Amino acid sequence: MAYFDAASTAPLHPVARQALSASLDEGWADPSRLYREGRRARLLLDAAREAAAEAVGCRPDELVFTPSGTRAVHSGIAGALAGRRRSGRHLIVSAVEHSSVLHSAEAFETDGGSVTRVPVSRAGAVSVESYESALRADTALACLQSANHEVGTEQPVAAVAEVCRAAGVPLLVDAAQSLGWGPVEGDWSLLAASAHKWGGPSGVGLLVVRKGVRFAVQGPADERESGRAAGFENLPAIVAAAASLRAVRAEADREAVRLRQLTERIRARVPELVPDVEVVGDPERRLPGIVTFSCLYVDGETLLHELDREGFSVSSGSSCTSSTLTPSHVLKAMGVLSEGNVRVSLPLGTSAEDVERFLDVLPGAVAGVREKLGAPTPETAVRNDVLVVNALGKLCPIPVIELAKVIGDVPVGGAVRVLSDDEAARLDIPAWCEMRGQEYVGEEPAERGAAYVVRRAS
Amino acid sequence: MAYFDAASTAPLHPVARQALSASLDEGWADPSRLYREGRRARLLLDAAREAAAEAVGCRPDELVFTPSGTRAVHSGIAGALAGRRRSGRHLIVSAVEHSSVLHSAEAFETDGGSVTRVPVSRAGAVSVESYESALRADTALACLQSANHEVGTEQPVAAVAEVCRAAGVPLLVDAAQSLGWGPVEGDWSLLAASAHKWGGPSGVGLLVVRKGVRFAVQGPADERESGRAAGFENLPAIVAAAASLRAVRAEADREAVRLRQLTERIRARVPELVPDVEVVGDPERRLPGIVTFSCLYVDGETLLHELDREGFSVSSGSSCTSSTLTPSHVLKAMGVLSEGNVRVSLPLGTSAEDVERFLDVLPGAVAGVREKLGAPTPETAVRNDVLVVNALGKLCPIPVIELAKVIGDVPVGGAVRVLSDDEAARLDIPAWCEMRGQEYVGEEPAERGAAYVVRRAS
Repeated sequence: MAYFDAASTAPLHPVARQALSASLDEGWADPSRLYREGRRARLLLDAAREAAAEAVGCRPDELVFTPSGTRAVHSGIAGALAGRRRSGRHLIVSAVEHSSVLHSAEAFETDGGSVTRVPVSRAGAVSVESYESALRADTALACLQSANHEVGTEQPVAAVAEVCRAAGVPLLVDAAQSLGWGPVEGDWSLLAASAHKWGGPSGVGLLVVRKGVRFAVQGPADERESGRAAGFENLPAIVAAAASLRAVRAEADREAVRLRQLTERIRARVPELVPDVEVVGDPERRLPGIVTFSCLYVDGETLLHELDREGFSVSSGSSCTSSTLTPSHVLKAMGVLSEGNVRVSLPLGTSAEDVERFLDVLPGAVAGVREKLGAPTPETAVRNDVLVVNALGKLCPIPVIELAKVIGDVPVGGAVRVLSDDEAARLDIPAWCEMRGQEYVGEEPAERGAAYVVRRAS
Repeated sequence: MAYFDAASTAPLHPVARQALSASLDEGWADPSRLYREGRRARLLLDAAREAAAEAVGCRPDELVFTPSGTRAVHSGIAGALAGRRRSGRHLIVSAVEHSSVLHSAEAFETDGGSVTRVPVSRAGAVSVESYESALRADTALACLQSANHEVGTEQPVAAVAEVCRAAGVPLLVDAAQSLGWGPVEGDWSLLAASAHKWGGPSGVGLLVVRKGVRFAVQGPADERESGRAAGFENLPAIVAAAASLRAVRAEADREAVRLRQLTERIRARVPELVPDVEVVGDPERRLPGIVTFSCLYVDGETLLHELDREGFSVSSGSSCTSSTLTPSHVLKAMGVLSEGNVRVSLPLGTSAEDVERFLDVLPGAVAGVREKLGAPTPETAVRNDVLVVNALGKLCPIPVIELAKVIGDVPVGGAVRVLSDDEAARLDIPAWCEMRGQEYVGEEPAERGAAYVVRRAS
């Protein structure tokens, strides 16, 4: 059994476990009390804050512990926006931020603020220029992740921080995916992170607000964590978070090299082993442990089940997985294929053997799913001038499979109209055309859903 | 060493520790994922929810886990107020609620809402009639604690829930102090609680919203915990919280009898052993483990240090403790003496020997503090008609000590004017008069602070 979903949550680091266990004995009391148990708890809390601040590269009094990374993002964005309310009510985010950032942006819009969502390249990266041109006189805050959680692409944070700084706008960095690997470079103003992403326990986030950044805590507060994170401190977990961050950093350089070789191998081998695959994300500027690819004519959820049966735990940004019926906003913003999407994110210590076994198993798993769905094989036939495929009521990846089955039935130059009311088709039909060298003519209105017109080019 | 501050936070119950340790192995993954580690985490989360719901007496789908009791209160009040915004913008709370409730009320006032703070008796209890008469046509929500955290007085929650229900107003119960002892009776609508108060780990609160209660989550949300508590679930701690609630309940009846005997003994012995003491809180309708008293002419912080040196960890609602310079809002609302305040809150399993040792040590500790402060001894003398005591710039308990030193210097019928700019004097001088059988004439404006006039009655 191999757990390849570290980007969702990393297995607990042994150091986190030890520290948690020790601080359950020493750090259960209220650190604001003056008796011995309280003083002991306060010492542990102070030491954890210093260790975390050192790893982040900030002053201890700039860092507070929150109950989660999500809470750090929500509080950080709300506080920074409120602190700069007089400057204006405009927020900049990238289109590929974590949902906690996008939810904050939506709440801000509901409250009357305006939001610019900066697009990304096909590799998932923003450009410094697009942040620069999104800055306005009334911009209160800009947010940018250090690296993307679905495809691993690193963002140009230091350069974006520089243009923000020049404009007098604070930059909040969501460092959830990268903080275990190293500090975030550049002159950012706020930073959020989450301990369970680096091997710490759940229940701990970090929020850093640099001295001099205007910040107004929103909602009811109390005296804990400088008034920035209300509620009794989750002290044993905080101690474990700080200790494991230090431990993970000590291994980071060595593990980065090792995991990068393993993901490099997956990036190279998957397209050789599996037909009709698109590996997504930046091939160079990326996190060491994440590799993401999409398989044409595959239902992501079924593929995940097949891989799970073979002992591999991975996740998917496909539209057809678990609770969600829309494809990942990240893949959508990148304009890449979303069907049959698989994200492999390797935890520290992943063995080369497990990766090889994954590469052994994957082709059969994909072929099995395709066979079940009746995906096209190279042979198709016959003639017709305009062909209508009615895929209404059918979900990803069926519309694309239907299209692929009939494209050979029209002559070169002829067209296929695919009727579909599945939101994923809007993304996946053009992506299929690009992969297949067919011409995507465009989308036309239809009585139900939309008609996607494809012209046979070859 | 004896830890007598369970009302701040209870030592971790052995069952919580075991459950936490086991679920670090089994429950670290993301419960929303479909692979085996995720499914295992989901099973643990579902089981914890069912166990907690059973202990509360609600349906599992009415209960969500939050990162703390404070967060449960903040989210519960904000959500209930927003859900009933059309009914009106009036909130009722008692004057002795936990700060998390009062902070929520203040935030609501800042946002334009109106708040009624229901007063309490000298024993710390609200009356049903005062809640009934506080209800208005535009009341959106009422809040009442199940029992007070500083003095242990139980509130008439079931009867208040009934009058609220009759008026169509939901009642939110802060059950933080009582949930370990048993379910909250009555037809309440929302309930909040905190695991570390019953011996569970920190980092877990409960928020229960009964079916049919209008509720609108405020701020950015995500798909976790029915959209009512954003952020990655703190699963190992949640499992430990539910397991320890069950374990604590199994011991509750037996421990309630035992701890009640111990606190009964403290209530009876302290006034016999220590002169000038006021035991506060309801002598009958109270939590088993809490007893609170105030010592005249004593600086609470110094007394806490003395007791800590003797090996006892207790807390204080005095104005002169730790970070706060105002006396506890609870003691203030009760109108009882706040100086030299000590709260003893016994954890499960407290031994009778530790309590006896505390009773042995207390008289000497109080006498030591009084001696240091130059508190009056029975002998005082001499004559003067109106006497002005200038205690400006002096903090609790000095103004009362100065008053006590000179009251014998005026004849019966004569008056003392105490000039003080310490906020605690407003509470403590009348309380001293009541304890001493002297007449408190009232407060008069003064150039700085206020003048408190006391007439010698005996």
